[in-house]
Amino acid sequence: MARPQARATRPAPARARRYIYWFGGGRADGRADMKELLGGKGANLAEMARLGLPVPPGFTISTEVCTHYYAHKSSYPPGLKEQVPTALARVEKTVGRRFGDPEKPLLVSVRSGARASMPGMMDTILNLGLNDQTVEGLARETGNPRFAFDCYRRFVQMYGDVVLGLKPETKTERDPFEIVLEEKKRARRVELDTELDADALRELVGEFKGLIRTRKGVRFPEDPEEQLWGAIGAVFGSWMNERAIVYRRLNAIPDTWGTAVNVQAMVFGNMGADSGTGVAFTRDPATGENIFYGEFLMNAQGEDVVAGVRTPQPIAALERENPKVYAQLAKIRRTLERHYRDVMDIEFTIQQGTLYMLQCRVGKRTALAAVRIALDMVRERLIARDEALRRVEPESLEQLLRPTFDAKAKDAVVAAGRLLARGLAAGPGAAAGRIAFHADEAEARAARGESVILVRIETSPEDLRGMAASRGILTARGGMTSHAALVGRQMGKVCVVGCEALLVDYEAGSLRVSGRDVVLREGDEVAIDGSTGEVFQGTIPTAPSEVVQVLIERTRDPATAPVYQMFAQLMKWADQVRRLGIRANADQPDQCADAVAFGAEGVGLCRTEHMFFGEGKLGPMREMILAETPEERRAALSKLLPFQRVDFEGIFQVMQGRPVTIRTIDPPLHEFLPHEEPAQRELAAQMGIPFERVRSRVEALHEFNPMLGFRGCRLGIVYPEITEMQARAIFEAAARVRKAGTPVEPEVMIPLVGHVKELMLQAAIVRRVADAVMKQEGVRFRYLVGTMIEVPRGALTAGEIAPVADFFSFGTNDLTQTTLGVSRDDAARFLVPYVEQFNIYPRDPFQSIDQEGVGALMKLAVEKARRVRADFKLGICGEHGGEPASVRFCHAIGLDYVSCSPYRVPVARLAAAQAALGRD
Amino acid sequence: MARPQARATRPAPARARRYIYWFGGGRADGRADMKELLGGKGANLAEMARLGLPVPPGFTISTEVCTHYYAHKSSYPPGLKEQVPTALARVEKTVGRRFGDPEKPLLVSVRSGARASMPGMMDTILNLGLNDQTVEGLARETGNPRFAFDCYRRFVQMYGDVVLGLKPETKTERDPFEIVLEEKKRARRVELDTELDADALRELVGEFKGLIRTRKGVRFPEDPEEQLWGAIGAVFGSWMNERAIVYRRLNAIPDTWGTAVNVQAMVFGNMGADSGTGVAFTRDPATGENIFYGEFLMNAQGEDVVAGVRTPQPIAALERENPKVYAQLAKIRRTLERHYRDVMDIEFTIQQGTLYMLQCRVGKRTALAAVRIALDMVRERLIARDEALRRVEPESLEQLLRPTFDAKAKDAVVAAGRLLARGLAAGPGAAAGRIAFHADEAEARAARGESVILVRIETSPEDLRGMAASRGILTARGGMTSHAALVGRQMGKVCVVGCEALLVDYEAGSLRVSGRDVVLREGDEVAIDGSTGEVFQGTIPTAPSEVVQVLIERTRDPATAPVYQMFAQLMKWADQVRRLGIRANADQPDQCADAVAFGAEGVGLCRTEHMFFGEGKLGPMREMILAETPEERRAALSKLLPFQRVDFEGIFQVMQGRPVTIRTIDPPLHEFLPHEEPAQRELAAQMGIPFERVRSRVEALHEFNPMLGFRGCRLGIVYPEITEMQARAIFEAAARVRKAGTPVEPEVMIPLVGHVKELMLQAAIVRRVADAVMKQEGVRFRYLVGTMIEVPRGALTAGEIAPVADFFSFGTNDLTQTTLGVSRDDAARFLVPYVEQFNIYPRDPFQSIDQEGVGALMKLAVEKARRVRADFKLGICGEHGGEPASVRFCHAIGLDYVSCSPYRVPVARLAAAQAALGRD
Repeated sequence: MARPQARATRPAPARARRYIYWFGGGRADGRADMKELLGGKGANLAEMARLGLPVPPGFTISTEVCTHYYAHKSSYPPGLKEQVPTALARVEKTVGRRFGDPEKPLLVSVRSGARASMPGMMDTILNLGLNDQTVEGLARETGNPRFAFDCYRRFVQMYGDVVLGLKPETKTERDPFEIVLEEKKRARRVELDTELDADALRELVGEFKGLIRTRKGVRFPEDPEEQLWGAIGAVFGSWMNERAIVYRRLNAIPDTWGTAVNVQAMVFGNMGADSGTGVAFTRDPATGENIFYGEFLMNAQGEDVVAGVRTPQPIAALERENPKVYAQLAKIRRTLERHYRDVMDIEFTIQQGTLYMLQCRVGKRTALAAVRIALDMVRERLIARDEALRRVEPESLEQLLRPTFDAKAKDAVVAAGRLLARGLAAGPGAAAGRIAFHADEAEARAARGESVILVRIETSPEDLRGMAASRGILTARGGMTSHAALVGRQMGKVCVVGCEALLVDYEAGSLRVSGRDVVLREGDEVAIDGSTGEVFQGTIPTAPSEVVQVLIERTRDPATAPVYQMFAQLMKWADQVRRLGIRANADQPDQCADAVAFGAEGVGLCRTEHMFFGEGKLGPMREMILAETPEERRAALSKLLPFQRVDFEGIFQVMQGRPVTIRTIDPPLHEFLPHEEPAQRELAAQMGIPFERVRSRVEALHEFNPMLGFRGCRLGIVYPEITEMQARAIFEAAARVRKAGTPVEPEVMIPLVGHVKELMLQAAIVRRVADAVMKQEGVRFRYLVGTMIEVPRGALTAGEIAPVADFFSFGTNDLTQTTLGVSRDDAARFLVPYVEQFNIYPRDPFQSIDQEGVGALMKLAVEKARRVRADFKLGICGEHGGEPASVRFCHAIGLDYVSCSPYRVPVARLAAAQAALGRD
Repeated sequence: MARPQARATRPAPARARRYIYWFGGGRADGRADMKELLGGKGANLAEMARLGLPVPPGFTISTEVCTHYYAHKSSYPPGLKEQVPTALARVEKTVGRRFGDPEKPLLVSVRSGARASMPGMMDTILNLGLNDQTVEGLARETGNPRFAFDCYRRFVQMYGDVVLGLKPETKTERDPFEIVLEEKKRARRVELDTELDADALRELVGEFKGLIRTRKGVRFPEDPEEQLWGAIGAVFGSWMNERAIVYRRLNAIPDTWGTAVNVQAMVFGNMGADSGTGVAFTRDPATGENIFYGEFLMNAQGEDVVAGVRTPQPIAALERENPKVYAQLAKIRRTLERHYRDVMDIEFTIQQGTLYMLQCRVGKRTALAAVRIALDMVRERLIARDEALRRVEPESLEQLLRPTFDAKAKDAVVAAGRLLARGLAAGPGAAAGRIAFHADEAEARAARGESVILVRIETSPEDLRGMAASRGILTARGGMTSHAALVGRQMGKVCVVGCEALLVDYEAGSLRVSGRDVVLREGDEVAIDGSTGEVFQGTIPTAPSEVVQVLIERTRDPATAPVYQMFAQLMKWADQVRRLGIRANADQPDQCADAVAFGAEGVGLCRTEHMFFGEGKLGPMREMILAETPEERRAALSKLLPFQRVDFEGIFQVMQGRPVTIRTIDPPLHEFLPHEEPAQRELAAQMGIPFERVRSRVEALHEFNPMLGFRGCRLGIVYPEITEMQARAIFEAAARVRKAGTPVEPEVMIPLVGHVKELMLQAAIVRRVADAVMKQEGVRFRYLVGTMIEVPRGALTAGEIAPVADFFSFGTNDLTQTTLGVSRDDAARFLVPYVEQFNIYPRDPFQSIDQEGVGALMKLAVEKARRVRADFKLGICGEHGGEPASVRFCHAIGLDYVSCSPYRVPVARLAAAQAALGRD
């Protein structure tokens, strides 16, 4: 009333909110870009319907209903109860069948569909609408009672499982429906399900219903409407089942998104020899090659292909089987790629010779495929370069750097007859490790530090954690789109599937190979090649990837390395658009060389303490620590000086004038001393000092919370002679390299500064030594003195610190520890449940920057520093520097560079490019 | 040129800046409020001159010169070299004597004088201007060659020590000048300095000069101007001597203030029997009584009184000695008190019957005296109530709560003949402990946890640290204004001085009592009463202070407890003006009762974990920790429930409806388990479980950084049954107490919250249990659920947390640890030098809030919380809550209350009042 103008422009409110979106018959309420509301499946069904593709009609119940469902104690919003029958009536009208009609019954599927793909995570019900009356109608109509009762028994089984919750109660218990089915087959003396006749199936339906009554105390609902609401509730309920929750955690999908529910008229791929079902990718999802890639099974329902129970035929075989349908499908392939400008993953069913499209979505792919597809599509003018950069998941690039088997070693293993079998190459890379037959066992072995290959007949969502813990995954059954292949690929695991020669016996805990006299047991070694599908007995040394061979080993000519060339092209484009500089954390010359090869523009963190563990250095280091006077300490330090100088010379040499940020000593001194008595006695003997002195020094250095103890610049302040020695080593090395004609750019970084005076004291030493050395060596070069911002006080007082610092580098590992009050070493006990069970942090804050907390401090520090100098130099050198979301955050808050481990440099380059392109 | 208007209003710049401020002859350039520029001594000399008091003329060199001196490599600002001689000429003119004049020489004193009083910390030179010529003139003029040469030898000795640095080189070495002096006395066969005649003294001067030449390689300067500049430089230099630096650290005086230098015409208290010198307080500084209180020595120089070498006479004796001077002094006493409206500490000299005032300053006093003087002055209408509140140092109030000896035990000790001697009661309170004869020894014993009485012939600034470490201080020589008395009182130590019956032999390491057959050695026990001056052999149980007797023990009628009455009056006034609420940290009913008695308005922190260590509770607690399933854990918790409930009932009962903030369990669980194998075996046996289980659980619970580990709300989130049990105990207790007719106000506080979801999860449990219990018990009462803000992330995201919290309480202990990245338990190694040596933090941030860092986070959190609700409830429960500067900070940022230990409650009340009165 107070705002008549606003009211005038608002549409009149609908009586009830719309929760149902129609698709089918060439029309749809939804569109591909409505994934948030309709889920991926629903949005794409709508889009396909709009494109005129043959989509069975149906409707999508929006994700808003799911949100309401969880916010209101599993109840539906007002209006839904009326909207569902209306939409159902439209389906009835479109296909000319009626729900519950004993003559011409409408059957529907009820499927979940979330905003992001969560394959196999949630529940699906097929053939809904069948009951004791309608099954007879279906039998009469199709003239195929066996088909009708097969549909019915599958429906009752699914409904019993998904809606009524009749499942195995323990992990070892078998599916109770399967037990009854096996029993029936034994009684009928047949081997396969398909050998059971209509009568047997009719009996099975009765027995399944009896099982439900006995075990769950409820009757199977005969009323199709009751069935439908039960199925809708079960799908919404499956959003919060455990495996879905775990999957979302692993894939950073928020719980709040919710799922949509798709109700769609059934079509049947199991109506006989002229029916079938299949899945396909518009290009090869493993290599990216521009070929139509897929599999189909005749006389089967959709889930049979994905479940990997029967191994399907390649899509090319469909051309012989049914040329008309194949041609139609090939046309759809082109239509979809043109329309979506991306590789699509489709599901189709052929019902008595007629093609139906059941699903399409953007296809998941390996890193290699992602790169190739992106580059090819630019060449094909389907997408622009920027889009190509956005298309590749930065994290996935690490796969391109992953090792393959050493070629000679592999040849030898083959020659020795240890190539056991060949399966489908489902996840590239090479892995060797010990066999685990169960996910639990895989987790346990991985926790003990073993490299594990998870070997399964087939995998299921229950195996998720075990898969995540394994180095490689090997299955005996299933195709390229089986659970193991899809999920394994997505996790970036080395993966070989459908290796049918393998005979896995879970009970005996053994793996035999058909036709070979080999028995492998849990814990035995196998090696798998996810790029060729080969499976080997024993272990094989791995060899670097093609990219690594070209860049790091320099053992391969780039001209003959196609993968390298694609990688290089993408990196070149990335470098053209990114604003962030990319540096690497590297402590030794060889690491620096790797970093430069991967595209690092400097060293963002050189940890000097690692140097003290080197040959000949630990002795003087310990002398220094055991010193009782500044004089003794100086004497020990003077022994360390030449070692450090040589280390730095090597680094400056390799870096050829690129900036090198060297951090002065950081860890607490007790890390350099032995903690067990025998080692202490040995040290005392070596140094010719009393054991007591060693022991008492170790005791004196003991700390309750070493993370918050006597470390970082605190060491250099109390023992300025340490900083002095390190500064001298750095500047003498720089001077020598400079005098030999190579430019140098040293940046000395003081760790753990919380108060500006700490930096003042340490910087004064560094600058004094720098001046003295340059004078003494008769050479001048630019150098910087800056600090790490890694305790909250440093960030909070950045405005005071900035005037005396040449740069800041955020040490987000320690900054996360102190800001959250969480010790990384001790966090597992609560941080794992915090992320996985309680959803307190969306991701592990030590992997991806906690933007709300740690990020807020970083922003504050950036603002304060830039108020001091608008061009104040800022970087990050915590491990977050190579994690894409964190890189994007660093871009957003205006850092100058990120620094990460050398092998993460390509990931950071691409993430930085995406950040510049505005990907969030 | 760009700002002509600004130029027009500026005064024309002086040719050189003014560094010299005159006083004397009833005029002065300075005033009492110019302490910053002139130091306390200089400003007050100027003020006394303005008041027409008899001040020998002189001038003050300002603190700006000191600042310049340290900023410019010990050099003086331009202009000073000209200004000093000009000022000196004015002194010459005023007293009618000339510097270096062989007939009528002007002698001057050169003294330091900083903004804050630093008694005995810096250097002083007297009799400057004497040389081989002028000494003869002085001898002729006074007709007293002995006097002239005594002055000369003192001057040479002081100059040699202070300016030329001829001091003992080790702590055990004796003063080289004293050795020569002793030698001389032996040669002349006399005992006292005063028995040496003019010849002997003349010889001594020569020998002293020889000593300087031999030991320091320089000649004693005969030129008075050279002497003057040497002395000025030495005084500025003494600002940075070690004992001055230590003193400033202890008293929170910034190094940047600098000292002034006062050059003043000498007057002599050692010119014979009609001369003398003294110090006095305008009221009794120990009791506050309104009597003229002081001491004097005839025929002595000023330093003789303060040094405590000879025990002086009480001031009243001066009335007999010289009634005219006494009357003049008594008049000055009144003038000064009226003028300054405070108790003044004065120094005077009588030269041949003429009174001169050499110094006046606000008198230091005991807590008791401060309170009495403040109250008396309000009654005398010298000051207002607000001023009275400002006059008492909050920290000092703790002295009023300090124990005295148990009266009966003391009577028994006296009866047993163990009253050894009686000295001057210089620092109130009672202390018993082991004898240490040296400061080092005192520190070492204190570090071992012993209660120490430092016993010295007399103390000196070298003893500062040892004094700080001791429970009490006992000296054989010196008066109420000796070093031991002044400094001991200021430190709040129990202190008995001038106990001349004691014979301390440092070399033998023994203490004998004149006329008694008692020998005490280092480590033996003594007890001293700083309110009566008594010294006892052995230990005596202490009894509570009068305030404690009235409030806590209730063994004394307030009507007969004058100290209590004064305390109560001051507290009443404080409560009338303060805005901050005052609560106490108390874990048990008795502590709560104490807190209420001291004026706490609630409990701000009740730590529940302390309860688990009680009788019968540790067993179930350990069962709980060793539980392997939630069921076992619940079983153990159900045993703890009744214990916790009883604890809470007691607390609610005592608190009578005042708010009680109860924190759920906070420390890591391993704190409750034994860490040594024998204790672990015992525990296993007790519980009837395998030793291995205990050991492996202890190992599993081991943490690298327990401070940042599995503790606080993290426990309650992973084991919600713990929170549930605690909430149940709290609310069942509250319900029972409420039903029995006593109001209750429980506030449940969740510790270590860094993310709002942590609080949501824990608060949900607490509220659910609260509702259930209130329903079950059929009673309703108000309760709050809030959180501690003690990790930076909690403060940074306070805006998210506030909407789900009823209150915040800043846990500044942990917040300091995490914000600074400093473990309190491990900090000593660097935090002590950080404060004392490097001046990085002005004070220990664990004692006084680091306002720049931790305080910035607190402010941020306050702003964010108050943006959510303008009246959001905020408190502090870290140990800073009872520290005056921190209390003022809490007031300034707008907290609602502070919470501290019960005995600090009066301190907090007064500090809060001062904060409200705008004291900063």
